Amino acid sequence: MEKNQHTIFGINGCTAVLESRKYKITDILIQTGSPAERDGKVTRILGYHGGRIKFLTAAQFKTNFVKWRTQGIIVRFTGKIESTLPSFQKKTGNIGLLGLDRIEDPQNLGQIIRTAECAGIDGIVIPKHDSCGITDTVMQVSQGAFTQVPIYQVSNLHQTIIKLKNEEFWVVAMENSVKAKEWHEVDYKGKILIVAGSEGRGIKKLVLESSDFQATIPMQGKTNSLNVSAAVSAVLFERLRQLSA
Amino acid sequence: MEKNQHTIFGINGCTAVLESRKYKITDILIQTGSPAERDGKVTRILGYHGGRIKFLTAAQFKTNFVKWRTQGIIVRFTGKIESTLPSFQKKTGNIGLLGLDRIEDPQNLGQIIRTAECAGIDGIVIPKHDSCGITDTVMQVSQGAFTQVPIYQVSNLHQTIIKLKNEEFWVVAMENSVKAKEWHEVDYKGKILIVAGSEGRGIKKLVLESSDFQATIPMQGKTNSLNVSAAVSAVLFERLRQLSA
Repeated sequence: MEKNQHTIFGINGCTAVLESRKYKITDILIQTGSPAERDGKVTRILGYHGGRIKFLTAAQFKTNFVKWRTQGIIVRFTGKIESTLPSFQKKTGNIGLLGLDRIEDPQNLGQIIRTAECAGIDGIVIPKHDSCGITDTVMQVSQGAFTQVPIYQVSNLHQTIIKLKNEEFWVVAMENSVKAKEWHEVDYKGKILIVAGSEGRGIKKLVLESSDFQATIPMQGKTNSLNVSAAVSAVLFERLRQLSA
Repeated sequence: MEKNQHTIFGINGCTAVLESRKYKITDILIQTGSPAERDGKVTRILGYHGGRIKFLTAAQFKTNFVKWRTQGIIVRFTGKIESTLPSFQKKTGNIGLLGLDRIEDPQNLGQIIRTAECAGIDGIVIPKHDSCGITDTVMQVSQGAFTQVPIYQVSNLHQTIIKLKNEEFWVVAMENSVKAKEWHEVDYKGKILIVAGSEGRGIKKLVLESSDFQATIPMQGKTNSLNVSAAVSAVLFERLRQLSA
């Protein structure tokens, strides 16, 4: 398989890829008589992509893409999803970055990217090692959000934190500890990096120690196990609430 | 298959079921040498369940439960998960119920139950028709939270809203409309029912019309598609923030 060759299916994900104009479109497969073929947004976008569209019957779709909920559209494309962290030195105002430490589950990563885009996050920072990469599953679950929110791949999250602190970011680690404030007691205004860790293993010690604050969401129930993407959602929308106040 | 016969796997879900003492335990299958066998919490609970434990080898687990991330423990049990909505007439103080309208995806339903339990919700109201039932997948995704947060099955959500309004509940529908306030401008104190609809179809018109308020989470990005469980998380933790203020 060619490097950076990706496949996405479903109306939301496919239209996001086609609209973004960031990737080289290899193939567009449309199932005749499907919801995608009738969809106004899809039809409009397809106008620009004439030569690469193939129409397949429902039977052909079923044979080739069993178990995929394609809605009748599949797009194959090439292009790099991750980019390099730029300098934010000269930027001012409210800039919110989200750092992810050791998120290994593609469902969680995809959901977090989707939530981050909806919550107006300016970029997601993911270390190269020890984390799930941006696989086809991650892109699929993100429902196309990966085309809109920059995903910065870094070699070391601890080093990145030091760099961002030099660029006047405050760093908040989502961690349940005695030092932690409640998530809504943290000030998210200005330049801020919010770091979330994996459900099982949490945030690396070195990363935690280089953070300025720790924020926790106290559990009310007995099971004591909030999904990481639900926790991220609560924190990112609390940030938005503060920015709109 | 016997009615109300359920299967759950993994350490969190299984220990929640075993600890809750609400269900009749049929079988406990433990894989020898597995994380579950070594887990302190599992070991302690298993003390009460001697007769029903079977030990299987890794090969037997692999043959019978391929693709399940069991962590070496499976519990089969019987019991009703849903109960009938009680009267809240004489209750006072902060009571938060969550109503779900036409949530059909078991992953979303399971995640919402998990989040609701962590956010101290007092009960989840689910209509009998047009919604995903509490399947084994839902229980699995909820990580055992279904054992702690009451799940009330009702025949009609609109009728239930009228009943709850008579019992002095305020009803907030999560809906993007011109009438809607931003999610953090709604007062969630006291007796409140928060209603969330499906991503595709939203909330039924009749349900919407019987609500007192509508609340929306304005989308910041371009994809405009927040997952329903992420939206529920933002709203339920905003409620908690208000209660703690």
